[in-house]
Amino acid sequence: MSGFPPVVRQDWLGAPDGLALIPDGSVTTPGGFVAGGVACGLKASGARDLGVVRATRPAVSWLLDTTNALPSAPVRLNRTRDRSGFQAVVVNAGIANAATGSAGDRDARRMSELVAAELDLTPEQVVVSSTGVIGERLHMDRIAAGIPAVCAALSGDGGRAFNEAICTTDRAVKGGAFRLPLDRGVVQIGIAAKGAGMIRPTMATMLAYVTTDAAVAAADLEAITRRAGAGSFNRISVDGQMSPSDTLLVMASGGGPPLSGDDLGRVADAILAVCRWAAIQIVKDGEGAEHAVRVMVRDARDADEAERVARAIGDSPLVKTAIFGRDPNWGRISQAVGHALAGAPEVACEPAVLLDGMQIGAAGARAVMALAEYDIEVALGRGGAQYDLWVSDLTHAYVTLNAEYHT
Amino acid sequence: MSGFPPVVRQDWLGAPDGLALIPDGSVTTPGGFVAGGVACGLKASGARDLGVVRATRPAVSWLLDTTNALPSAPVRLNRTRDRSGFQAVVVNAGIANAATGSAGDRDARRMSELVAAELDLTPEQVVVSSTGVIGERLHMDRIAAGIPAVCAALSGDGGRAFNEAICTTDRAVKGGAFRLPLDRGVVQIGIAAKGAGMIRPTMATMLAYVTTDAAVAAADLEAITRRAGAGSFNRISVDGQMSPSDTLLVMASGGGPPLSGDDLGRVADAILAVCRWAAIQIVKDGEGAEHAVRVMVRDARDADEAERVARAIGDSPLVKTAIFGRDPNWGRISQAVGHALAGAPEVACEPAVLLDGMQIGAAGARAVMALAEYDIEVALGRGGAQYDLWVSDLTHAYVTLNAEYHT
Repeated sequence: MSGFPPVVRQDWLGAPDGLALIPDGSVTTPGGFVAGGVACGLKASGARDLGVVRATRPAVSWLLDTTNALPSAPVRLNRTRDRSGFQAVVVNAGIANAATGSAGDRDARRMSELVAAELDLTPEQVVVSSTGVIGERLHMDRIAAGIPAVCAALSGDGGRAFNEAICTTDRAVKGGAFRLPLDRGVVQIGIAAKGAGMIRPTMATMLAYVTTDAAVAAADLEAITRRAGAGSFNRISVDGQMSPSDTLLVMASGGGPPLSGDDLGRVADAILAVCRWAAIQIVKDGEGAEHAVRVMVRDARDADEAERVARAIGDSPLVKTAIFGRDPNWGRISQAVGHALAGAPEVACEPAVLLDGMQIGAAGARAVMALAEYDIEVALGRGGAQYDLWVSDLTHAYVTLNAEYHT
Repeated sequence: MSGFPPVVRQDWLGAPDGLALIPDGSVTTPGGFVAGGVACGLKASGARDLGVVRATRPAVSWLLDTTNALPSAPVRLNRTRDRSGFQAVVVNAGIANAATGSAGDRDARRMSELVAAELDLTPEQVVVSSTGVIGERLHMDRIAAGIPAVCAALSGDGGRAFNEAICTTDRAVKGGAFRLPLDRGVVQIGIAAKGAGMIRPTMATMLAYVTTDAAVAAADLEAITRRAGAGSFNRISVDGQMSPSDTLLVMASGGGPPLSGDDLGRVADAILAVCRWAAIQIVKDGEGAEHAVRVMVRDARDADEAERVARAIGDSPLVKTAIFGRDPNWGRISQAVGHALAGAPEVACEPAVLLDGMQIGAAGARAVMALAEYDIEVALGRGGAQYDLWVSDLTHAYVTLNAEYHT
């Protein structure tokens, strides 16, 4: 994995005071978790392609997944289970087990049963995820042989191997761990995520797994997870396409200090910031991306309008090629705004556009667009609502990755 | 202009029996119209950039325009006028007069006044169109000098010059004329259109002007034009982006034979087919396009769902790069369908996909995808509604055209 530059714009994270990256951290940094990753033969490269994380003491959990109307078999399986009671997750990379019908459903269920048997859990306690090509059956013989191997390898040092195993063609793992000091102790948060660096087409799956030792109740964790997902992974777009497999799982092992005062809010802010940290890395590693841009829509009539305009700008191939070409092209943003508001009450005025606070027509605008990370702020002058979205640009590498490598 | 292959798939047009292309035809082929095009200095190349079409006997008209919420100044001006009474149109290429505020409104109105004075019409009888860069003022001195010149040059042979003048970086003019035999005579239909061949960014304007000598009433022409626009220019997508300038004008000079029986319906079908003929050429000349594909959605729950799914497939960068790469990638179509139906009642089964009637997984599917024009048929199994959309692919040339040539 060749890597890509880390997130530079720390202000994008919205982190609570004191949140700090732990060197070489992973999902096993918080107490109460072991993990591992092995190669079972799904990736032609021979790289790790099967990973497991397990809670070593009773954890509470919450899980969010895709809104795609044709979800993958693992997503359908996870939905039949209690989202607050997961104790382990098994992930394979290489094949998404999506669009595989009832045979795919059986394969996903079998994965949960095999892991449960190895770990002395019930199948209902095991989240299943698969990422890779859509429309192909899993090689269940290889997975069935790999599961005992990966379960035997689980350890407190296995977080990095797990993170490698869930990647497809990501240029680098997106994961790590953070510490949040509280009055009565320290909470730790680990994350392992993967994005959409494609070399074979149809790999467009976002997966993220968060671990923490925070002592939070299941109901609180649901609210924390919903807010973190809405503020991070649901605010990024590489190409406006929705995967059938997207999954965010948060597991809390509860070994950390008791929470008091505003601690719960700080933990929630920290989990949101950690998710955003990983989400922005997915944008930066998005299919050939050279720029990560925050599209900030301001002064919209309501929240829906703000989001609709932000997505119209961020998903516009004309805007995305202008970002790639470092072209301060105000007309394309105006066009996207007008497109997004088609059918709305008449728009009184053209939007005001700033690049890192500078007028788009100013002499310095081109210099801003040479940065790897910058803000495009679009003020509509219609109300008080706002929305932020992080997007990548549209480059030749995107076309090459998605056209020239055939399935 | 280097040209591009004409429309091969005549069955795509849905033309009435007997409709035939007239060699070297144009908007001046139908009786009752003169036209011309000159160079007034807006295009750096020195090519024609100012054109006029005028009815030489009282015509009825109808006009459709963009639903972009930030329409150009000419579109806003045309909307203040009686759409059934237009007798002439003036078009400049090079600058779109969009996002130019009240100064742009004054420029558009002045164009109509100058043309009206030359042609002994009222300004309200003159349609104004501008195409090119968004956000720049017109050079009104050049236009004011050019209008007397182009009005002096109007003739029955000027249709081709008009069609050249409205192009921006189109690889070829999209225009011609057709004849439709009826029981009591022949009706002729001419068209001049332009598309989105970009060499400077922000030129994304679709314009089309149809002339006919059919003897139709204004109310009928409105219905004919709405149906033709809905079935042609509103059914194409190069990059899913909506221009602030899109305009379709139909003018009928009424010199043709009286219509009887089902003649009115046949004329309507012919105008739809002629518009579709030009619309498909816009797709084929779309920014770097190598393939024109008809996306046929079948068995949708209702018409809205069918259109939503067709647009999700046709605008998906993953599907468009697969078309470019000739990759029969069923998974990407499934993903786009699931995305389009997100939030809808549960989808029972995966879509069935045919390429020119062949199963997408069949050995011959790659050969179909080598064709310049083919059908992707997607059956949803949810109901009886359908929708057709013509789209281009996403190529390296698209990225180059839109990123590497800076404004």
